[in-house]
Amino acid sequence: MENLPYLTHEAKFKDSGIHRASELLKRWGNETVEGLGLIGVPLSKPSISHSGASFAPETIRKMMNAFTTYSIQQDTDLIASSITDFGDILMHVTNLEESHRRIESSIETILQSSPSMKPIFLGGDHSITAPIVKAFQRVHGKVGIIQFDAHHDLCNLEDGGPSNGTPFRQLIEHGAIQGKHLYQIGIRDFSNGKVYSDYAKENGVTVYPMSDVYQRGITAILKDIIAKLQKEVEIIYVSLDMDVMDQAYAPGCPAIGPGGMDSQMIIEAISLLSKEPSVCGMDIVEIDPTLDFRDMTSRLAAYSVLTFLMGFGRRN
Amino acid sequence: MENLPYLTHEAKFKDSGIHRASELLKRWGNETVEGLGLIGVPLSKPSISHSGASFAPETIRKMMNAFTTYSIQQDTDLIASSITDFGDILMHVTNLEESHRRIESSIETILQSSPSMKPIFLGGDHSITAPIVKAFQRVHGKVGIIQFDAHHDLCNLEDGGPSNGTPFRQLIEHGAIQGKHLYQIGIRDFSNGKVYSDYAKENGVTVYPMSDVYQRGITAILKDIIAKLQKEVEIIYVSLDMDVMDQAYAPGCPAIGPGGMDSQMIIEAISLLSKEPSVCGMDIVEIDPTLDFRDMTSRLAAYSVLTFLMGFGRRN
Amino acid sequence: MENLPYLTHEAKFKDSGIHRASELLKRWGNETVEGLGLIGVPLSKPSISHSGASFAPETIRKMMNAFTTYSIQQDTDLIASSITDFGDILMHVTNLEESHRRIESSIETILQSSPSMKPIFLGGDHSITAPIVKAFQRVHGKVGIIQFDAHHDLCNLEDGGPSNGTPFRQLIEHGAIQGKHLYQIGIRDFSNGKVYSDYAKENGVTVYPMSDVYQRGITAILKDIIAKLQKEVEIIYVSLDMDVMDQAYAPGCPAIGPGGMDSQMIIEAISLLSKEPSVCGMDIVEIDPTLDFRDMTSRLAAYSVLTFLMGFGRRN
Amino acid sequence: MENLPYLTHEAKFKDSGIHRASELLKRWGNETVEGLGLIGVPLSKPSISHSGASFAPETIRKMMNAFTTYSIQQDTDLIASSITDFGDILMHVTNLEESHRRIESSIETILQSSPSMKPIFLGGDHSITAPIVKAFQRVHGKVGIIQFDAHHDLCNLEDGGPSNGTPFRQLIEHGAIQGKHLYQIGIRDFSNGKVYSDYAKENGVTVYPMSDVYQRGITAILKDIIAKLQKEVEIIYVSLDMDVMDQAYAPGCPAIGPGGMDSQMIIEAISLLSKEPSVCGMDIVEIDPTLDFRDMTSRLAAYSVLTFLMGFGRRN
Amino acid sequence: MENLPYLTHEAKFKDSGIHRASELLKRWGNETVEGLGLIGVPLSKPSISHSGASFAPETIRKMMNAFTTYSIQQDTDLIASSITDFGDILMHVTNLEESHRRIESSIETILQSSPSMKPIFLGGDHSITAPIVKAFQRVHGKVGIIQFDAHHDLCNLEDGGPSNGTPFRQLIEHGAIQGKHLYQIGIRDFSNGKVYSDYAKENGVTVYPMSDVYQRGITAILKDIIAKLQKEVEIIYVSLDMDVMDQAYAPGCPAIGPGGMDSQMIIEAISLLSKEPSVCGMDIVEIDPTLDFRDMTSRLAAYSVLTFLMGFGRRN
Amino acid sequence: MENLPYLTHEAKFKDSGIHRASELLKRWGNETVEGLGLIGVPLSKPSISHSGASFAPETIRKMMNAFTTYSIQQDTDLIASSITDFGDILMHVTNLEESHRRIESSIETILQSSPSMKPIFLGGDHSITAPIVKAFQRVHGKVGIIQFDAHHDLCNLEDGGPSNGTPFRQLIEHGAIQGKHLYQIGIRDFSNGKVYSDYAKENGVTVYPMSDVYQRGITAILKDIIAKLQKEVEIIYVSLDMDVMDQAYAPGCPAIGPGGMDSQMIIEAISLLSKEPSVCGMDIVEIDPTLDFRDMTSRLAAYSVLTFLMGFGRRN
Ligand SMILES: [Ca+2]
Ligand SMILES: [Ca+2]
Ligand SMILES: [Ca+2]
Ligand SMILES: [Ca+2]
Ligand SMILES: [Ca+2]
Ligand SMILES: [Ca+2]
Ligand SMILES: [Ca+2]
Ligand SMILES: [Ca+2]
Ligand SMILES: [Ca+2]
Ligand SMILES: [Ca+2]
Ligand SMILES: [Ca+2]
Ligand SMILES: [Ca+2]
Repeated sequence: MENLPYLTHEAKFKDSGIHRASELLKRWGNETVEGLGLIGVPLSKPSISHSGASFAPETIRKMMNAFTTYSIQQDTDLIASSITDFGDILMHVTNLEESHRRIESSIETILQSSPSMKPIFLGGDHSITAPIVKAFQRVHGKVGIIQFDAHHDLCNLEDGGPSNGTPFRQLIEHGAIQGKHLYQIGIRDFSNGKVYSDYAKENGVTVYPMSDVYQRGITAILKDIIAKLQKEVEIIYVSLDMDVMDQAYAPGCPAIGPGGMDSQMIIEAISLLSKEPSVCGMDIVEIDPTLDFRDMTSRLAAYSVLTFLMGFGRRN
Repeated sequence: MENLPYLTHEAKFKDSGIHRASELLKRWGNETVEGLGLIGVPLSKPSISHSGASFAPETIRKMMNAFTTYSIQQDTDLIASSITDFGDILMHVTNLEESHRRIESSIETILQSSPSMKPIFLGGDHSITAPIVKAFQRVHGKVGIIQFDAHHDLCNLEDGGPSNGTPFRQLIEHGAIQGKHLYQIGIRDFSNGKVYSDYAKENGVTVYPMSDVYQRGITAILKDIIAKLQKEVEIIYVSLDMDVMDQAYAPGCPAIGPGGMDSQMIIEAISLLSKEPSVCGMDIVEIDPTLDFRDMTSRLAAYSVLTFLMGFGRRN
Repeated sequence: MENLPYLTHEAKFKDSGIHRASELLKRWGNETVEGLGLIGVPLSKPSISHSGASFAPETIRKMMNAFTTYSIQQDTDLIASSITDFGDILMHVTNLEESHRRIESSIETILQSSPSMKPIFLGGDHSITAPIVKAFQRVHGKVGIIQFDAHHDLCNLEDGGPSNGTPFRQLIEHGAIQGKHLYQIGIRDFSNGKVYSDYAKENGVTVYPMSDVYQRGITAILKDIIAKLQKEVEIIYVSLDMDVMDQAYAPGCPAIGPGGMDSQMIIEAISLLSKEPSVCGMDIVEIDPTLDFRDMTSRLAAYSVLTFLMGFGRRN
Repeated sequence: MENLPYLTHEAKFKDSGIHRASELLKRWGNETVEGLGLIGVPLSKPSISHSGASFAPETIRKMMNAFTTYSIQQDTDLIASSITDFGDILMHVTNLEESHRRIESSIETILQSSPSMKPIFLGGDHSITAPIVKAFQRVHGKVGIIQFDAHHDLCNLEDGGPSNGTPFRQLIEHGAIQGKHLYQIGIRDFSNGKVYSDYAKENGVTVYPMSDVYQRGITAILKDIIAKLQKEVEIIYVSLDMDVMDQAYAPGCPAIGPGGMDSQMIIEAISLLSKEPSVCGMDIVEIDPTLDFRDMTSRLAAYSVLTFLMGFGRRN
Repeated sequence: MENLPYLTHEAKFKDSGIHRASELLKRWGNETVEGLGLIGVPLSKPSISHSGASFAPETIRKMMNAFTTYSIQQDTDLIASSITDFGDILMHVTNLEESHRRIESSIETILQSSPSMKPIFLGGDHSITAPIVKAFQRVHGKVGIIQFDAHHDLCNLEDGGPSNGTPFRQLIEHGAIQGKHLYQIGIRDFSNGKVYSDYAKENGVTVYPMSDVYQRGITAILKDIIAKLQKEVEIIYVSLDMDVMDQAYAPGCPAIGPGGMDSQMIIEAISLLSKEPSVCGMDIVEIDPTLDFRDMTSRLAAYSVLTFLMGFGRRN
Repeated sequence: MENLPYLTHEAKFKDSGIHRASELLKRWGNETVEGLGLIGVPLSKPSISHSGASFAPETIRKMMNAFTTYSIQQDTDLIASSITDFGDILMHVTNLEESHRRIESSIETILQSSPSMKPIFLGGDHSITAPIVKAFQRVHGKVGIIQFDAHHDLCNLEDGGPSNGTPFRQLIEHGAIQGKHLYQIGIRDFSNGKVYSDYAKENGVTVYPMSDVYQRGITAILKDIIAKLQKEVEIIYVSLDMDVMDQAYAPGCPAIGPGGMDSQMIIEAISLLSKEPSVCGMDIVEIDPTLDFRDMTSRLAAYSVLTFLMGFGRRN
């Protein structure tokens, strides 16, 4: 369209000196991938309470457009890097079990064909972590999990089936992980059932309530965990439930409340984890864009993806 | 609490001359019921698009509190009447097929024990109509359906299972109703697939698009339908999908659009149908209170329930 | 500020060919007034349900800025006319009886000093009509009332005192008006108590439910009323409760519902009444800007004021 | 991705029997086009009041996805048809005159290379109509305009330059059209300046205020206009400012108000115009998605595009 | 309903391992109560600015349902405890003085019949604290008050009567408390009148502005206050005006602003106070759910009630 | 209006002991001014993304009414002080270059006639800082700038002209300031282009990213900057782009994100700068009230103005 210089299907102003973070996403073309991958898992019908978390992959990708590729604090431009965007996994309208199967088999296939790729999963609700980690375990072996969450997510399966309240119990009972390889950070008062805290203890799960985070600091806690996990597992998987944040910082999660983490803490945590070579996958879950204010929570998710990519590039 | 005259668990001002319509709802106590019943069916996970229609039973009941029992136009106070409130059917968190089963079996049980009771069902999405009508058919025999809807809801079941796009197809294919006993009113341009309009024709379904409603008037259409159905079926069931309304009048449906009915038309229609002895059940579906403006659509639903009760009392 | 041509305390673009309707409002300077007046009555604490109608005078005045002075349908520019803006009556924070007294005495004083002025009152909730009409009656003698409302507002005073549910009963019981001089238009089903409809009948109040408005048309009804009232009263007062409108057209009233008037009907009604010489006052009440969508209801109020001014200029 | 059947970049449920109207949009590939075209003109900085109308092309296209291709009233599936989507014209960030130049030159180029193509322009504010019609006039000769609008848009250019209040004056003064070839429908009371109504008269513009629309009906008015224009102009251009609608039906325009058209009227009008062979272009302007409720106004725009396409296919 | 296992009037999913905090609320049945009580005081008409704080008791109770009974940080399940829910005090529609009388007399009656019960009052606006503390003083003797607030609430009574700006002045002038037994924490710049800070000084009130809270820490301040009050008063009453919080943490108060407390600080404060045996009552006021975002402020209130209950159980 | 004591054009409750901060604003009457001035600059059309920052001057002034004149922390009542309110600069509707010219020439005229006055400018977007500082430089000589911002605002001018992304580059290239006299505080990761960070370095701009603010503290940084600037420039100008704040504290900026400053930090910073005699002007920009929640960001702006006035009074 040489004589139509202004006609375009992307009619947004483009500053020649700025790379939008969304430019880092390269559509997957069936090739074997190394480096970071991005996979959307738009499933939220298994949620116990009404959830629009299925809209989050689209919204977080859009928020990538609100950020740039350059970190002034590290004086590094990510534009040389890239994230392979595998797209989203299509869910079944009415059969939720089938949806979980699609997640597990799709991810297993991807991990097998690109074994050194480190995927970031954009949920969806927390129920997606069970099929994801099962796939990881089959492909990569023993998995340790660092979970940021206000909740244990260790509920029984009899009452409501595999919901967003049960993923880590499913993984333990299925044998995909061992309880002692699960570390839960940010668990909060008045947000869990005692029997599930007891279940955590009985199964060797290590739990850091928010009081520990305030007192010891997130960095010290994570260093301890990594030191322990490194000796015991093949890979570490990070599961970031955004409701670990105080409601002031992440108002778009279904289960918000006071007394959680602030934005500095979580960025510090992700920065540390991203540089750790054993960390081979991460999910960001429980963001419901229909409840959010100005996509604040999806902005934090996009910022977290970029922080992870920044640290990932510094792995040695 | 004789010396605590102002302490109460219902601290709302009560005018001694006004009966709230919510007072008409009498909690069911396991007795055999005659007259009108109310049954909440808070299911919306089968919806093709994200839907909070599961909140509608609660919201519509609350809106009953925004209206009174007195019709000035008929100079009749409904306070002598009542509606038996059976409560809601509890849905399964993750197994939607099980939820549909619970609807069907619960309603069959209720209809069997209270065969002359006429229930009004508060959805939920339109997927609930399939199990409801199946129960009706088993208990009461041949069912004719008058459906108000912008959409046919005759989609195939292969693509997504029993969703809110399929209930009338399920009923026809299952043999619970015959196509020729289904009348669809208010079907709209650019809101359906041609193959499903073809399916309607092939199966003898009678379709009145909005243009017919504008030209002939709702009363004439309904009189025709009733005249025909009365000769052929045991009972008539009315299914009111609120998206039959123009978006200005029912902004809280998932699938809103221009060019639908106005509030006067639908009240006229319900008034007419309520007086018709063969009409033995009605559902009101596809209201998502999380999308609505000031519960306008649930207000219209509550007003419709009252209009139905008013006409019902005039049956002879 | 000759060398600062762009510095201003009203930095809004002004088109030289357009007069904003707000320019018609001339601040009162203690002079005797003829023609139309505008008086804000920002009182809504007496409302039975939570109401921000006290914000309406400010919002309606602001919406005057959204309209111009020119009627193309009458080919008349109102810019030669004006409305004297008396400002608002200051309410007491905690003594609602005192607030009603301030309304009554302020308006009595104004009417005495400007006996030929025709005021438009911007409520506030409907409780303001009682003190207003009492003042009218004392200054001008026998008052007939044409009330547009979904509700009778004839509730008893024992239960909650002088609220927005009681003004017309207060006026009748106080002797400020006779029941037979009260005409209620637009009264709606399921919005009133039977005992109050009975009270209306017993006291000779004439009631036109919405069904009458649909069937006879607003113009025919109003002509009847005026013909009757003219023989019996000194002046006619119009009380416009915006909830007479269908919720689609006036979403900002506390008590919205389906089945009311549309915007064309009410404009037609006000246009007719404005030309009638015996109409000596009007209020517009029950608009809560905190509940409205884009000030639609206040826009309709401002449009009504202008329509009234247009007809007023045509009185002979 | 044969062994990854559920991985996709469009993870939305697709019913095999339904074609989304968005499927009708075919991206332009530099070829000569016949039939309908779609061109986004995301410009709203020239608006007198703050406007986000620049977001409308994106939102209206998205709303195409909320509708299907099938008209039950005409029993016609548009899927055999298509609309060539030329994309959007990129606007300058700070030089609005340059933005208008880009519109004019882009459209002139397009019209020259595809002279029989009939474009639908998605604004943007009404300022875009001036450069568009200039381009039309240069390529196609004498242009007649049918404008749906609450406002004349004949303001002077001295006060604020070429804004959304001036396009038709610009066209007349520039000589691109003659005043007598401009027909304005739906002009409303208290929404215009007298001097601009006078200007319309002096320049032979024909004006139908809303009262005419109510009394004569939209079809009779349009037939008159077409009969007259056909003898005098080469082509007819339709300019649809959505604020011609009553605020209940199009709540997302910057300048909303009571007393306008309803959704049935406008669909009837567009249906009639779409079948008229001399109608060679249309714009839909003044929709601000940031102000709308649930994209109602953009839904009406998308429905209008489809209605136009339906009638267009019936031209002979 | 043995053969209707899914029919229920509480159709919410119930996980067998989780107790909702709302289960802790036991409806009062006229018995003498020990332990904690809950009393709603839905009064906000005395507020200086428009306030919907009367909705807060209902909303905070609903938010109790969003939390569980288990504190992981204390490894304690509150399910063995309970809070006696006395319901709400019914307010008069138009007589605000009568409403205050109802509060005072109801609470005096309750305190007399259950003298060892410790009530938590859910406001309502801050005007409720005056009648509450008067009742306390009459039943329990000398009262010390620890007030969390951005404002003194020591305004004069002449200007607007007993509003939400005057409660502590009323108490001092009425002799119900002595100024030196009032401690105000979190008073903020640009939020008070100098004459009222002077009044505080002259009456011996101790004031800790936010700068003190930042510098000394909330725990040190509270320990000082308790040490002093214990020697001088019979009981300590805590009054928590939620606007002591920074607007980021409590966006639902009428008078929000920057520079206040964060969620950790207030939880720490309540935790400390709850363990102190002399603390015999608390109110939580100035939450307007109609202004809040996702009930954040009511969530914080519910969390505060639970924190108080936790500490209360640890008193010796 | 002696016998109309309650009729007023300001019908808001006035407590005799409280001075609203808005009372500090004295309308300018063409006199020479000393002390603080306030000038609204309602321009946001040059913004790269859609912005309603033009509404901020009106909203911030309104929020002045939400605060009082008294600082309890300094025990100082500002009521003896005042701010001269010059009003707003009127912008051109379509010629943005002309709007920038109006800003520059108006401010130059004001500064010349009141050379010792220290103005606070309420934007508007950040594009206004370029013409403002040019005026300053011409009147007062060498200017040093302390900029709080998540962004450099050093973008090239070729791509989009003088937008809100370019003001500091414009100033450097125009020679109005030297790069070494520009200090940028709070610059954030993933919010800028590398070439513009490089430009900053090449031009001697000093940049403190958020990590520096967290580590060194804002006070230490500002003391360093002032010490350096004092030796080199005539006056210091402070430019406060509110997006330097974390999104939790300033949700109403167009470009919000996590990881910024909190309300305490910015108040501390402004307090320090306000006492510094060389600081001769300040702007507050990039607040879009149409995007904000409950005017939180404008409240913070009003609080900042008052904090500045407080410190200003302590200059010696
Ligand atoms: Ca979780
Ligand atoms: Ca969680
Ligand atoms: Ca349907
Ligand atoms: Ca439907
Ligand atoms: Ca009324
Ligand atoms: Ca009413
Ligand atoms: Ca226009
Ligand atoms: Ca227009
Ligand atoms: Ca207080
Ligand atoms: Ca307070
Ligand atoms: Ca900036
Ligand atoms: Ca910035």
